[in-house]
Amino acid sequence: MPHWKRVTIIGVGLIGGSIGLALRKRGLADEVVGYSRRAETLTKAREIGAIDTACDTIAAAANGAQLVIACAPVRWIPDHLHEAARHCCEGALLTDVGSTKQAIVAALGDLPDRVRFCAAHPLAGSEKSGPQFADEQLFERRVVVITPTPATPSEAVAETSQLWRSFGAETVQRDPAGHDRALAATSHLPHVIASMLAAATSPADLPLTATGWRDTTRVAGGDVELWRQILVENSDNVVQTLEHFETLLKRFRDALVRDDQAAIVQLLAQGKANRDALGS
Amino acid sequence: MPHWKRVTIIGVGLIGGSIGLALRKRGLADEVVGYSRRAETLTKAREIGAIDTACDTIAAAANGAQLVIACAPVRWIPDHLHEAARHCCEGALLTDVGSTKQAIVAALGDLPDRVRFCAAHPLAGSEKSGPQFADEQLFERRVVVITPTPATPSEAVAETSQLWRSFGAETVQRDPAGHDRALAATSHLPHVIASMLAAATSPADLPLTATGWRDTTRVAGGDVELWRQILVENSDNVVQTLEHFETLLKRFRDALVRDDQAAIVQLLAQGKANRDALGS
Repeated sequence: MPHWKRVTIIGVGLIGGSIGLALRKRGLADEVVGYSRRAETLTKAREIGAIDTACDTIAAAANGAQLVIACAPVRWIPDHLHEAARHCCEGALLTDVGSTKQAIVAALGDLPDRVRFCAAHPLAGSEKSGPQFADEQLFERRVVVITPTPATPSEAVAETSQLWRSFGAETVQRDPAGHDRALAATSHLPHVIASMLAAATSPADLPLTATGWRDTTRVAGGDVELWRQILVENSDNVVQTLEHFETLLKRFRDALVRDDQAAIVQLLAQGKANRDALGS
Repeated sequence: MPHWKRVTIIGVGLIGGSIGLALRKRGLADEVVGYSRRAETLTKAREIGAIDTACDTIAAAANGAQLVIACAPVRWIPDHLHEAARHCCEGALLTDVGSTKQAIVAALGDLPDRVRFCAAHPLAGSEKSGPQFADEQLFERRVVVITPTPATPSEAVAETSQLWRSFGAETVQRDPAGHDRALAATSHLPHVIASMLAAATSPADLPLTATGWRDTTRVAGGDVELWRQILVENSDNVVQTLEHFETLLKRFRDALVRDDQAAIVQLLAQGKANRDALGS
């Protein structure tokens, strides 16, 4: 098991809080320090045992840290890590959990040599937010995508992977662009679809919904500002996957209009095959 | 609690099997008789205790029944109930669980006077099928839509409602057309969307899916033939809800392309508001 003296978590909501719990319950750090711009979030994070120490500036939180993990909404991650890089230990590892990777990795290309950076994205989370939903087992058996560039030191990749594997996660590597293309299809598109499906439903019809509507729209309950940032940062890929999805949807609608039973069955069967390939 | 001497369930899969279990475990019938065109389904239904008696013809299954519940795929329900009407008791109640109502109610408008018919649709089920997934509690706290017409005898409506309420369900009434319009939005559209999202995802990207994709596509694992029938029977309404959804989706895509932050936030917030209105 790896061990760090002082770990700083920037943003102690659902993900940051779960990281803090996982570090502390597994004894992977001597001290876990949390930063949040909201005092109540910090208080709650300490209450649930996700952090040892609460700081209301990144400078104080990152001071002397060996490991800094940025868990803020994606737009803020580069600024937060630039700030942390000025205060952490010489040789510290900086990493993040952002849902988009190209923009973050590009914006952090000029970090000083005194720190190492390796980006990552745990495919875990929920429509809920805040440290009150934190769970030390959130990352168990989940996939974490590590997205190094050719410039990332290999031992920074190894240490980042080790961090996540020590939480029970499985790690895979992708380059930042490949990550963003894939996640547009597997996460960002589903969010847009779930949101627009919920938006398209008349409130008068809600009493006639059941588990189908409920599951298909679950992620639409996610934080609007968090998702605005993700979708805008990855908008080129999201627009492309949307166009592809819209083409399939129109093909299905045309098949219904033409009463083309073969096309209806073929499209439903294609969806079922992909869904069944994943298991329940 | 109501009580029936002999109840016939036509189609003893997930829904029919769950009805049989609920009737037998609650002692609501002296005998539950099941019909399926598949011998293995009948055997399984008897094994799990969903039926007392298995019959391989509807004539034999419906013979002497006071209550007949058609749980077959929607296209077959009218024929099955016409056949049952020739063999059940004088004055028997015939009902069904079909996911579409207008076509079924219209096709059963000419049932003989010796039987009473009242259509219904329990908003319960899952992407799984077969009696092995049957659950006597499947209908507890679920909504069942009763869809009488002006021609439906009021005591048939009352008896059908009583049946479902004795399983712990809540009943609501809609006319068949109103049911089909609402369910197009709350059930059939989500199914098409989930299927096309699953179909649009490259199998190579499946390892990078998480709970978001998983939940949004869950219903895509449903039986293709069952859903083909539902979507085709309600195709006018489904096409209309699809067009409405596609308009919202295109509005969102345009907002992303134009980087119109206000429109992005407004659409995501509208989806979140509708989703949050339902609870988790």
